[in-house]
Amino acid sequence: MAEHVFDAAMALRPDGPDRFVGHCGRSYWNAVGPFGGISAATMLNAVLQHPALLGEPVSLTVNYASGLAEGAFRILARAVRTNRSTQHWVVELEQAGATVLTATALTAIRRATWSGSDVPMPEVPSPGALPPADRMIPLEWLHRYDVLPVVGGIPKDWDGAENDGGPDQASLSRFWMRDRPERPLDFCSLAALADVFYPRVFLRRAFRVPAGTVSMTVYFHAGAEILRAVGSDFVLGQARGQFYHAGYFDQTAQLWSRNGVPLASSTQIVYYKE
Amino acid sequence: MAEHVFDAAMALRPDGPDRFVGHCGRSYWNAVGPFGGISAATMLNAVLQHPALLGEPVSLTVNYASGLAEGAFRILARAVRTNRSTQHWVVELEQAGATVLTATALTAIRRATWSGSDVPMPEVPSPGALPPADRMIPLEWLHRYDVLPVVGGIPKDWDGAENDGGPDQASLSRFWMRDRPERPLDFCSLAALADVFYPRVFLRRAFRVPAGTVSMTVYFHAGAEILRAVGSDFVLGQARGQFYHAGYFDQTAQLWSRNGVPLASSTQIVYYKE
Repeated sequence: MAEHVFDAAMALRPDGPDRFVGHCGRSYWNAVGPFGGISAATMLNAVLQHPALLGEPVSLTVNYASGLAEGAFRILARAVRTNRSTQHWVVELEQAGATVLTATALTAIRRATWSGSDVPMPEVPSPGALPPADRMIPLEWLHRYDVLPVVGGIPKDWDGAENDGGPDQASLSRFWMRDRPERPLDFCSLAALADVFYPRVFLRRAFRVPAGTVSMTVYFHAGAEILRAVGSDFVLGQARGQFYHAGYFDQTAQLWSRNGVPLASSTQIVYYKE
Repeated sequence: MAEHVFDAAMALRPDGPDRFVGHCGRSYWNAVGPFGGISAATMLNAVLQHPALLGEPVSLTVNYASGLAEGAFRILARAVRTNRSTQHWVVELEQAGATVLTATALTAIRRATWSGSDVPMPEVPSPGALPPADRMIPLEWLHRYDVLPVVGGIPKDWDGAENDGGPDQASLSRFWMRDRPERPLDFCSLAALADVFYPRVFLRRAFRVPAGTVSMTVYFHAGAEILRAVGSDFVLGQARGQFYHAGYFDQTAQLWSRNGVPLASSTQIVYYKE
């Protein structure tokens, strides 16, 4: 069976202790570099491929220091602290001798405990009842996902009409999403899905200002068993903006399985030009 | 004038290129190590003291790999990428030869842009109208803050009665807070304030389960001028839990000045035992 485009894009080859090499291609290309989600997946993949790995991902922070270019890159992934049930990672990606991405991650052996949610999955129509998104922005990576907007799709009219619809609505998107072609969900693809929401400032202002994520954090609330149960089904994601000031804004996101099981939560801070 | 207890606690001495030494004392002691906020402030302080610093903090992620012990520690703070207006940092703190904390940070020269907020400051009584918090948990660091709970103070009855009051209320706290004694707000003290909210799982369950932050991210939405204008006044903070599963839950937070200017947003993931 041919390798899935996602697996090919985040593929790494060991290159000595703590070291990996990879290659950035065009399959998830965004405007001036790859989609941030595939970069996050690649950084996490270095941790998951590492022979010293303990447990499963709990948190991941990826910092976008510069645009990754097409071509080869090197990753240094260090387990800087291994405890009885937790492990802390520092990951750095270099291209042409310069740092392009940094990341920290926590992996852990998790145990059953009390569970709960203070962010219930919103009631939305099922994926089958929704048309696919209009792809009005011609970016290669958008072809790698099936995205079904429930609310908050890309604005149709870039008329600069500020959306002041209140804190719950002004920058809210709810999307059903999955890899295209379908691929069973795992930690790396979940990390990438957390970045599928376009910059909230576009929605809030109906204005396409240059913008790009500078740091993203993903918390994994589901273990491998829950992800396996999701398989290649759609997941529901919700994103909202928070504060916009002096060139940077942040947005939060939550992702659930179709039957309402929390999978991940995420936050990111995004540069915007004006 | 005597050094403020906060400045003394996060004090660092240069110790060669990219290196600092510091000392962990008892002034912000929590149950089994220092309050996570003072550790976050210390990691940020290494960046802010670094001679190569460009700009002001935009984001900070601190990972708590192990408990810091009383005594000396060493910090390695590297500017791994410096662009025209942004700079990316990797910071590692060691004690007795082992990594205890890791951090990444983004600093930047910020420019005036369109501003907005999708999370308006809630309407709450002013600090003068509120009694101080009951300090029912005897922890040294709690004496370093004036905390005035509006809602969501530490439960009075640890009766294990799950609070299912809906997503907006079940794990919501709103506090006026400031350093005690008073100290003009700066980036380091703001980072620490983002960690003043006790673990949401306590509030949600009215049950004191062992719990500790394993990773915290702070986004700075205010620059130095706005912080100077706040001075040593109270700031309003709001925190809510999101998902709780298999030993880890996350909580989000927002902080505003008294007149409603967004100062910071934050998220953290917290270990809990059962």
